[in-house]
Amino acid sequence: MLLLLSTLILPLLPCIYVLVTYPLTPKLHLLLPPLLLSFVLSFVLSILLIPRIKHYPLKAGLFGKDLGKRGTKNENVKVPESLGLVSGVVFLTILLLLLIPFSKFLPERLPDLNSSLISITFMVLLGFTDDVLDWPWRYKVLLPTLATLPLLVAYDGPTSILIPGFLRSFLMSENQLTTIGELVTHIPTVVVDTEAAGAIVNLGLLYLVYMSFLSVFTTNCINIYAGINGLEAGQSYVIGCFVLLHNLLEISNNSLSTPHHFFSAVIILPFLGVTAGLLKFNWYPSSVFVGDTYCYFAGMTLACVGIHGHFSKTLLLFFLPQIANFLWSVPQIFKFVPCPRHRLPRFDSKRGVMLPSNFDCGKGEYRLLKWRSHHEDGKDGPGVNMTVINLTLQLLGPMGEEQLTVILLLLQFACCSLGLLLRYNVGSIFVEE
Amino acid sequence: MLLLLSTLILPLLPCIYVLVTYPLTPKLHLLLPPLLLSFVLSFVLSILLIPRIKHYPLKAGLFGKDLGKRGTKNENVKVPESLGLVSGVVFLTILLLLLIPFSKFLPERLPDLNSSLISITFMVLLGFTDDVLDWPWRYKVLLPTLATLPLLVAYDGPTSILIPGFLRSFLMSENQLTTIGELVTHIPTVVVDTEAAGAIVNLGLLYLVYMSFLSVFTTNCINIYAGINGLEAGQSYVIGCFVLLHNLLEISNNSLSTPHHFFSAVIILPFLGVTAGLLKFNWYPSSVFVGDTYCYFAGMTLACVGIHGHFSKTLLLFFLPQIANFLWSVPQIFKFVPCPRHRLPRFDSKRGVMLPSNFDCGKGEYRLLKWRSHHEDGKDGPGVNMTVINLTLQLLGPMGEEQLTVILLLLQFACCSLGLLLRYNVGSIFVEE
Repeated sequence: MLLLLSTLILPLLPCIYVLVTYPLTPKLHLLLPPLLLSFVLSFVLSILLIPRIKHYPLKAGLFGKDLGKRGTKNENVKVPESLGLVSGVVFLTILLLLLIPFSKFLPERLPDLNSSLISITFMVLLGFTDDVLDWPWRYKVLLPTLATLPLLVAYDGPTSILIPGFLRSFLMSENQLTTIGELVTHIPTVVVDTEAAGAIVNLGLLYLVYMSFLSVFTTNCINIYAGINGLEAGQSYVIGCFVLLHNLLEISNNSLSTPHHFFSAVIILPFLGVTAGLLKFNWYPSSVFVGDTYCYFAGMTLACVGIHGHFSKTLLLFFLPQIANFLWSVPQIFKFVPCPRHRLPRFDSKRGVMLPSNFDCGKGEYRLLKWRSHHEDGKDGPGVNMTVINLTLQLLGPMGEEQLTVILLLLQFACCSLGLLLRYNVGSIFVEE
Repeated sequence: MLLLLSTLILPLLPCIYVLVTYPLTPKLHLLLPPLLLSFVLSFVLSILLIPRIKHYPLKAGLFGKDLGKRGTKNENVKVPESLGLVSGVVFLTILLLLLIPFSKFLPERLPDLNSSLISITFMVLLGFTDDVLDWPWRYKVLLPTLATLPLLVAYDGPTSILIPGFLRSFLMSENQLTTIGELVTHIPTVVVDTEAAGAIVNLGLLYLVYMSFLSVFTTNCINIYAGINGLEAGQSYVIGCFVLLHNLLEISNNSLSTPHHFFSAVIILPFLGVTAGLLKFNWYPSSVFVGDTYCYFAGMTLACVGIHGHFSKTLLLFFLPQIANFLWSVPQIFKFVPCPRHRLPRFDSKRGVMLPSNFDCGKGEYRLLKWRSHHEDGKDGPGVNMTVINLTLQLLGPMGEEQLTVILLLLQFACCSLGLLLRYNVGSIFVEE
């Protein structure tokens, strides 16, 4: 309980610090109460609805048995699945209600809200159908790509990137395009800004393709960095808090991109509310599972704020653990190494701790590629499943499930802090405008 | 097969007649090929995808046994449920792709497309969750109401109604508001246009409330006028064809509302395509069921075109059988009369015909209200379930399931024709602009 409360409050502290110490514009001052209300309302609605709704998936046979409780008296408890549906619908309801003030007071941001609503609703639908029907991978990649179309069509931000100083000379020298520079301009829709001495390259349509990839990545990466109680909702909550922090910092800077960051803050607050509400029930020991529904919903929501907030590259910096987990998983995802259905750590019920989980090596054909785990008897065992969760257990040793979640969330917090530091200090490479 | 083909082709004939005989504007001439392509594409995609996807719901335990095949060798065949999901997703995919030409060539109708996408996606989501989780009635009314919000926010049409001549004198006489007229103006947001001698009453917000009710009605009324093979998709197909016919007539009139009717035609064509594709598999004997997913999806799509096409009252005229079925069902829906879980007709396997189905009268408490059915032995039986389907069987006698579907679709065709006749001849009461 104490750990859950700290998880909910700690990542919000920097945001509160910014709100208290930085001067607020009069407009933000006026809007703060309704914004906080949307956070509280979405939290309270989630808290009230999840216990009422959780019987429906149970009745429909949509439940799982917690593999992390194997060997305990709770191993056969049916835990209802896909309660991320409640979070998604509560969040979408608030966004639907926001249409009214947006159309009255912020018509210039209405297309952003509309496209976010379309993309997120589509992903909640896809997520829930995936929980029920278990789609093959090709659908999981194709459908999110389609779902990002509204975001790209509504996108009115820059499509240029800044080239770091030391690379500019490869594109231009003496006010002329170099051979490489010439080659680059032959890529369709790409334009090197010759006025800016190679500092600015407009990617045009390719930038939209990049944002589409980004969305497909964010919708799937949470889903594969999952499997222990509280991790899916926890990581999304921490990332969401850093998004809010970044928004608040930019709003108080009062830069050109303030309206976009304001939009992002408006969207992320109810997201944090529903996620906090879900985390209450999904925290160790979970009484509900979040389902693919939540993972897709969270991933697409974060992509929406990144794209419409015009900080998609900064957003990627907040996803460092997910990127690491994806890269580390590549050999298994693309079947260079065997990939069992579940890769979550296994539970040692005698000692009450989680251990890294293994895959079978088959008939030795994967010998060269496999990652060897050192069993306690000192011998090489079969390969350890390649996830950051298992890697943490390999590096830090066996530990309880709750402790493991907390350590992974601390890692998330540290990575997000590092990302923000990079964004504001190492900087111009990652700056959007 | 022949009956299915006739069902698909017959209601389209009037549309083809209009296209061939009325002069086409050059713009429509240019747009006709891509429009027809969207119809063909959505049809072909449905035909290809439904047989591939239908194994997923079967595997997930999402299937039903056809109650209309009881007592035959097919009574235990598992028929996959909710294949309306495929129709919905194919349709939404086409709408998503339409975002690109709309944002380039028709930016003034983009809000209509956006809001339709949000509302329809939300309803597909609600429908599929209903198929899986079986929501209670309060959610089935509350959530569609929310889903109509985007439509109302994006609505830019008139909110006034024309008062029929013989009623105007009740509102105004001698250029003064009568007592009734005064009372009417005391309803919030309602304004009687005194310049127009009581002919025009602006309902303001109340008009939006009416459109919200309309959408909730259309999303639910198809769902309760259902239960025999091909009826849900068939009725939606016939209504959709009449919507298209109305659009084409108005476009060729080249009136002020042409852009709105054009929008409606663009949306309804892929809808007809996916519905025709679904009907191929849902026609007697059904190899797939459409699910609440399809009913909600179809109802909301029809509401969208009615609202954004500015012909919501004409749309209601196309729903005469559904309105009759709803009104006739009211005693059972509101539990004045017992309401069993299923009200579809029962199948007499010996004679191969459908018979009206009954409800138990309980302990006589409903005696006064019940509708008595005359059994073949001449005695009063228990009450007959109050649906238009059962009523048809009571009036026309027992018949096979396919024949029953065809008769009900003919009834739909007749009612829609009557509606269109009323719209253009009796007229000014129902005219929108």
